[in-house]
Amino acid sequence: MKALRLNAWKSDPELTEVAEPKPGPGQVVVRIGGAGACHSDLHLMREFDTGTMPWNPPFTLGHENAGWVHALGGGVRGPEIGQPVAVFGPWGCGTCARCLAGADAYCENLAAAPAGGMGGGGLGLDGGMAEYLLVPAVRHLVPLPDGLEPVTAAPLTDAALTPYHAVRRSWPKLTPDATAVVIGIGGLGHLAVQILKATTAARVVAVDSRAAALGLAERGGADHTVQAGEGAAEEIREFTGGRGADVILDCVGNDETLALGVAAARILGDLTIIGLGGGTLPMSFFGQPYELSVQTTLWGTRPELLEVLDLASRGLVRTALTTFPLEQAMTAYRRLESGELTGRAVVVPGAG
Amino acid sequence: MKALRLNAWKSDPELTEVAEPKPGPGQVVVRIGGAGACHSDLHLMREFDTGTMPWNPPFTLGHENAGWVHALGGGVRGPEIGQPVAVFGPWGCGTCARCLAGADAYCENLAAAPAGGMGGGGLGLDGGMAEYLLVPAVRHLVPLPDGLEPVTAAPLTDAALTPYHAVRRSWPKLTPDATAVVIGIGGLGHLAVQILKATTAARVVAVDSRAAALGLAERGGADHTVQAGEGAAEEIREFTGGRGADVILDCVGNDETLALGVAAARILGDLTIIGLGGGTLPMSFFGQPYELSVQTTLWGTRPELLEVLDLASRGLVRTALTTFPLEQAMTAYRRLESGELTGRAVVVPGAG
Amino acid sequence: MKALRLNAWKSDPELTEVAEPKPGPGQVVVRIGGAGACHSDLHLMREFDTGTMPWNPPFTLGHENAGWVHALGGGVRGPEIGQPVAVFGPWGCGTCARCLAGADAYCENLAAAPAGGMGGGGLGLDGGMAEYLLVPAVRHLVPLPDGLEPVTAAPLTDAALTPYHAVRRSWPKLTPDATAVVIGIGGLGHLAVQILKATTAARVVAVDSRAAALGLAERGGADHTVQAGEGAAEEIREFTGGRGADVILDCVGNDETLALGVAAARILGDLTIIGLGGGTLPMSFFGQPYELSVQTTLWGTRPELLEVLDLASRGLVRTALTTFPLEQAMTAYRRLESGELTGRAVVVPGAG
Amino acid sequence: MKALRLNAWKSDPELTEVAEPKPGPGQVVVRIGGAGACHSDLHLMREFDTGTMPWNPPFTLGHENAGWVHALGGGVRGPEIGQPVAVFGPWGCGTCARCLAGADAYCENLAAAPAGGMGGGGLGLDGGMAEYLLVPAVRHLVPLPDGLEPVTAAPLTDAALTPYHAVRRSWPKLTPDATAVVIGIGGLGHLAVQILKATTAARVVAVDSRAAALGLAERGGADHTVQAGEGAAEEIREFTGGRGADVILDCVGNDETLALGVAAARILGDLTIIGLGGGTLPMSFFGQPYELSVQTTLWGTRPELLEVLDLASRGLVRTALTTFPLEQAMTAYRRLESGELTGRAVVVPGAG
Repeated sequence: MKALRLNAWKSDPELTEVAEPKPGPGQVVVRIGGAGACHSDLHLMREFDTGTMPWNPPFTLGHENAGWVHALGGGVRGPEIGQPVAVFGPWGCGTCARCLAGADAYCENLAAAPAGGMGGGGLGLDGGMAEYLLVPAVRHLVPLPDGLEPVTAAPLTDAALTPYHAVRRSWPKLTPDATAVVIGIGGLGHLAVQILKATTAARVVAVDSRAAALGLAERGGADHTVQAGEGAAEEIREFTGGRGADVILDCVGNDETLALGVAAARILGDLTIIGLGGGTLPMSFFGQPYELSVQTTLWGTRPELLEVLDLASRGLVRTALTTFPLEQAMTAYRRLESGELTGRAVVVPGAG
Repeated sequence: MKALRLNAWKSDPELTEVAEPKPGPGQVVVRIGGAGACHSDLHLMREFDTGTMPWNPPFTLGHENAGWVHALGGGVRGPEIGQPVAVFGPWGCGTCARCLAGADAYCENLAAAPAGGMGGGGLGLDGGMAEYLLVPAVRHLVPLPDGLEPVTAAPLTDAALTPYHAVRRSWPKLTPDATAVVIGIGGLGHLAVQILKATTAARVVAVDSRAAALGLAERGGADHTVQAGEGAAEEIREFTGGRGADVILDCVGNDETLALGVAAARILGDLTIIGLGGGTLPMSFFGQPYELSVQTTLWGTRPELLEVLDLASRGLVRTALTTFPLEQAMTAYRRLESGELTGRAVVVPGAG
Repeated sequence: MKALRLNAWKSDPELTEVAEPKPGPGQVVVRIGGAGACHSDLHLMREFDTGTMPWNPPFTLGHENAGWVHALGGGVRGPEIGQPVAVFGPWGCGTCARCLAGADAYCENLAAAPAGGMGGGGLGLDGGMAEYLLVPAVRHLVPLPDGLEPVTAAPLTDAALTPYHAVRRSWPKLTPDATAVVIGIGGLGHLAVQILKATTAARVVAVDSRAAALGLAERGGADHTVQAGEGAAEEIREFTGGRGADVILDCVGNDETLALGVAAARILGDLTIIGLGGGTLPMSFFGQPYELSVQTTLWGTRPELLEVLDLASRGLVRTALTTFPLEQAMTAYRRLESGELTGRAVVVPGAG
Repeated sequence: MKALRLNAWKSDPELTEVAEPKPGPGQVVVRIGGAGACHSDLHLMREFDTGTMPWNPPFTLGHENAGWVHALGGGVRGPEIGQPVAVFGPWGCGTCARCLAGADAYCENLAAAPAGGMGGGGLGLDGGMAEYLLVPAVRHLVPLPDGLEPVTAAPLTDAALTPYHAVRRSWPKLTPDATAVVIGIGGLGHLAVQILKATTAARVVAVDSRAAALGLAERGGADHTVQAGEGAAEEIREFTGGRGADVILDCVGNDETLALGVAAARILGDLTIIGLGGGTLPMSFFGQPYELSVQTTLWGTRPELLEVLDLASRGLVRTALTTFPLEQAMTAYRRLESGELTGRAVVVPGAG
């Protein structure tokens, strides 16, 4: 079969002929219906080098995957051949307390994980930009609910799961009189707005520097939009009657957005850093509102993936998609890199 | 001023001339903008007798109250004359752990409560079916958010606060892949449906025997309606893919609805008894799904009242209202008793 | 190898020669270091019949198991040969939301579970009263912490895990000014007392009709003991300053103990039914304190088993044990049945 | 009466004759049984200036107060003359959502607070270093449980309440297999150790540079002590089997301790900054373990004060005390400043 392989750090991936995977005991092969092209893949091609990650090329790209069960290894119970499934992306050791609770992204025994470190298909191991994907354990498969196609489900496994996890952990603070702020209305941010509106009665404020992005937030249900830049924090604070925002999801994560987050936050709130913008937030006792909790999040859990797929199957979360055949996967990445893409690019292997 | 007074058990209340209240130290007088006519008032007039409650007539009826601050007693800080406020209904001792957390309905030092037991204005003490209401402590006042009039706010202090409390305590179980069932789509039930839709992404199923009530639930956003009676539990279970409903709010509370609740419930779910239907549910180890939590709730807390008023001010919770001048309050009760009323009756003292 | 097999309903199990199990793909064979003799096994021998459970004899008894990893099937990663492990008892489908969170006892896809229904080794499938136990999936193994031997760990997988789950779910109510009541100080109850003392600062009250049991509770740290019978509820209520007990764990579960639980409970408390005493509790709106949550629990979760083993390894939970070689397993059951046993009987296969 | 008054910024307080307070409506006068001398008072005398706080001298010092109810203003219900009480320290507006939940320290309507900003008796308003203290609202009084004297209770209202709040909010992470680290074993830290041991089964590690402080932590129940300095983070990490500590309470809060906290923390943990050491922690996406929550806390809530007093009344939390008559209050402060004091200094007005 053909696969889009990253053969070396700091190089473009190449479409290469490789052998179809065969499932060993406990493993499953999935026929890919969609593989999302993620911004972090560009980091893999452009910036990473030996030692950046616990693993190295070559491997097939594609860490946002969904498709149909194709073949079962020995001892596998549960999935039926042909059943549509999403693939849970982070593959941990499976036996530490985090993995036992379905939170592989926080695995604490990574030496025993399939990739020998935090990784998964498309991140150190062969991913979904190919006709078939080898999944090392049945627990990484999540059945698709009725009404959800693999091509739609694929990007949800990351671009929706990540903000969903961040929103969900802040639910207790997202009461009807609360305000949530989403900074950065891109792939993750526009889904964060929808997830907040669907799962809480909090007011949602969207912040971005681009008018088109703010329009996307409005269509996603944002109650108020704010142009990034000077005065943004004051505008948010005024919107909240002076109290500040209870929950802030920073999908950018640079120095400016982190500072905005602190300036707009409420006492006892949450400021969650989702974006990899490389910023630093200097925390001190009097430097932010009392008992504002600041934290990063990484991906989400397996039970959360079930929930986010359910939201999507009912139309409560919608991703703007552009599909590409496998042969044009590099076109997808180039358009992603140049900022030409609207919404998420999904590579569909059989569509070429 | 005129007041609708219950002068004795098992009697109709009478419109009587009484002295206007004067606030003592720490007290506030509210000019009434609306006083809801509640089903439980009918119990007061028809069924209760000496010993039923810790207090006795005479007192003015009306325990769902909102209006404007009229006069402040000595030492009162905070409210401004003319400010629109809702009156938190249950008046506890103010110093036990429950009251300190704003949960006066669960006061554990009732001998020190103003009514000498669980009560409040309209329940043992003079209530809001009069031009003015004496409120014994400023903490019982909640400012009305912009856009909410006292006449609309009054019934929310009970008919919305009660189901809001029941829904809110079950939020952790009301994930997007969960199902909530509301049994009985009357005054509280039709608000329960709206509160569930506004604050969670759970599917909402409404159950009633009356087609009109089910229509009301649909307009409130119910995802599915079920005709009460044989087969109802099976229909709910089928709607949930066989798992059962995660949260059941029984706004009726008779033997049949409680049995339906258990039959439709999911393992690890919540069955909350809100309605005073007089039913009994026999619990045993194998008699209901494992770890189904069964409990009653009573009214709600002061912070919850802030939240529910916020929901209403944004149009996320709407009560169907019919207003009556004070002189026609008994008409309101008679129509409530006969089942002729659509939605909630609110008595407006100044409107006569 | 020799195994203690239940060959038919309503019969004593028999020591029989059977083939040693071989692990298939994904499976593990454990050499048994201890297998607890549980009261519920007596129900299997004496009371159950075709149709009681979703499975039937013959199978080897023993559902509280610990030992050492003996052989790995194909594709199994993680465990090392010789490593001491406890066996998580309830074996669910492994893919439903409950199983994904480690709560197999609440599996919602039991048709896909190894026993074709709620069960596990010793409950429909071959259990641990034999030299070797076949475990169908590696996720059912929990490594023993340092300082804990399989013979000690075995009964903890059920007799400690069950009350631990019940206590843990009530932690938010077990503040330092709260009171917990344990009714029935037998195998589970004496561990419940210790778990409460180790994990909370709540006061602990123990109730039993037997002086020896109350002595056991005192040695486990109970702050107060109460003789079951008339006046018990009043005594508890007085101990709590009139408020009632915040959390009640009924390890007996008959009509009397359930009624005692309700009479002793506090507003907003928890009453959890752990014991299979066959009682019924009639719930109605005014029949118990407001918002008292009543529920059963069943076994515990895999992450909870990690925690309870940790407690035991540090000496914070201690089980009184009597060991028996496999050849005398029926002696253990007979002594259990007659009430002669102090603490828990554990069968040690190699010790004969 | 005599009172220790701060008459100007950057000056020593002076013992001055002032009028005894008289309670207005809703107010209470407390006869002081003990007033703790707190480190933050030294900041008031030495470092603060006009504009540092929302209020200015003159006022009587002493913000950790307990005593007996002496006189009630008009309309006050509840307290009895002579009843021993602790005084809840932070006095907020009383009507915002935070105050309604008993969290005055997080009041969001400070313009309406008695001190016109975050403050209380001894912080902008007259405090407890005098024979009598005027308390502006009855809700600030908490009855002392049996067995607790005002002199012992006084410092608990701050030095114990502050770490109690920080520990309590992290309870869900403090499972029996978790590790908590307390950095800085001074007035707050030695109580943090005791509170952790009393209310959880987590392992407790104490860090300090002084051998005597580590000895104090051991007597308080610490499972392990670590000498501050190079290698401390590695030692903690090793103690936790490589995972890191689940909860870190930094009672110092300088650059070094904050960096130690991050280096020792576990994925998904809590790092809570309690100490006013003036440090800064630079947070970035990869700069600390994933989803480590970092936050400050400020004082505690009224319901938490009830709980912490209960712990103390049962001997589960013990403060080392040195008492001083009012006339020697400055001696207490000087010994506090020079580091000569063991434990907490409490000024006892009547003892002179």
